[in-house]
Amino acid sequence: MLYIIGLGLYDEKDITVRGLEAIKSCDKIFLEHYTAILQCDVTRLEEFYGKKVIVADRDLVESEADVILEPAKTEKVALLVVGDVFGATTHSDIFCRCKKSGIEVKVIHNASIMNAVGCSGLQLYRFGQTVSVCFWTDNWKPFSYYQRIKTNRDNNMHTLVLLDIKVKERSEENIIKGRDIFEPPRYMTINQCIDQLLQVENSQKSGVYNEDTYVVGLARVAAPDQKIVFGKMKDLLTYDFGAPLHCLLIPSPQIDDPELDHLNFYKFK
Amino acid sequence: MLYIIGLGLYDEKDITVRGLEAIKSCDKIFLEHYTAILQCDVTRLEEFYGKKVIVADRDLVESEADVILEPAKTEKVALLVVGDVFGATTHSDIFCRCKKSGIEVKVIHNASIMNAVGCSGLQLYRFGQTVSVCFWTDNWKPFSYYQRIKTNRDNNMHTLVLLDIKVKERSEENIIKGRDIFEPPRYMTINQCIDQLLQVENSQKSGVYNEDTYVVGLARVAAPDQKIVFGKMKDLLTYDFGAPLHCLLIPSPQIDDPELDHLNFYKFK
Repeated sequence: MLYIIGLGLYDEKDITVRGLEAIKSCDKIFLEHYTAILQCDVTRLEEFYGKKVIVADRDLVESEADVILEPAKTEKVALLVVGDVFGATTHSDIFCRCKKSGIEVKVIHNASIMNAVGCSGLQLYRFGQTVSVCFWTDNWKPFSYYQRIKTNRDNNMHTLVLLDIKVKERSEENIIKGRDIFEPPRYMTINQCIDQLLQVENSQKSGVYNEDTYVVGLARVAAPDQKIVFGKMKDLLTYDFGAPLHCLLIPSPQIDDPELDHLNFYKFK
Repeated sequence: MLYIIGLGLYDEKDITVRGLEAIKSCDKIFLEHYTAILQCDVTRLEEFYGKKVIVADRDLVESEADVILEPAKTEKVALLVVGDVFGATTHSDIFCRCKKSGIEVKVIHNASIMNAVGCSGLQLYRFGQTVSVCFWTDNWKPFSYYQRIKTNRDNNMHTLVLLDIKVKERSEENIIKGRDIFEPPRYMTINQCIDQLLQVENSQKSGVYNEDTYVVGLARVAAPDQKIVFGKMKDLLTYDFGAPLHCLLIPSPQIDDPELDHLNFYKFK
């Protein structure tokens, strides 16, 4: 039996009562820890559960998933996921592999950044497709999100922009040389994201947004020191949002009055 | 102090540990019970919390919100919300009123139907704006959702369709006569929704969808007897999904392979 359990967004206490009961019944517990990160240490989870938690990196979840699936054939296994269960394609894939292998699989939902951003005041039902902005390298500067933001704005929908996380990545040199030396984790900041967005606008010139466009920066959503700032791109470009995780909202060109009423509590000063 | 606390989707155990701790510290507890309903009795909540829960209907939350806000000036008060906190404009409004009145307000997130529908296999980042379908009356047959579904599909985005809930509603006659006689609660079924959607397509004829369009019906998401069926509109039009709550997903014209792989576990037979 495999439980796939959402942990929510902040710390060990954001799990649901149902999720906690499931963990306490499990023999093995894995934590998926590369598509998102919890804002607390794994040791705090272990103390709270009274159980050992095995941190599962990308290789383990994507290439060596049998390490998780094989024991689930005979024991109760939990795969913990930051946010909600189906926020990343990886978890859908694990779910499907269970179904195909005849392993019983149960899902326990939780808050995701995708619904928690309602805390900004922008109404969730008005959001269009979500985009991801990743760190550029010297040779790889993707910007397919630009067209998707354009589509959202052309149709008066808000956009949630998720920012890149690089955990346990190897440099190109170390990959080529086959060395398991990992870079320090990197979390894209709102500043870096806006800088990249403006570079793309300057090269593509479709007038999707500019430095005077109002956006909403959110840092550490659901944490006690959560930070929300509503201001122009040029204002948020240099604003210090502090520790990760960050995300960005690009509102539709037309913001409804109740939304504005709420957003104004977070106005850049 | 007002806590606005998401309860998640199914029963008393879907609350987070943090939410439960907050409730246990509160002097008064209200449950907002008309924009969504929990799939368990209020008495089960009361037993689980060891506290009295006051069920707040539309009038209380929208017109008489001071019943909630006034005690929050001096005591710890909880407003419980099915799903997540900012799923309904009503809760944003309560939040803003706290901010304006200088009442400290804390939000505790949870799963919302808006992220839980990832359980279908359709990827959340590909969803466009969400639409609501409400019960038609003899004189009022709104269908503004039709254009929004069209916009989503034209731009290759999925659509989450939320279905109407009528709780503690009065008939037109009773409203006119000023009688506080309430109709039995009504929950729109997937069958009723598809019937209405097809009527609108037949009158508008923009070719947004038809009876052969593939959709996903979801009933009682997160409950042990959750039901997901992926099939043509004409198939789901008469399929018995059982008890509420229901919702419907209209996939984008192009469904990605991993999505289809997952959806096929729920294929209509």
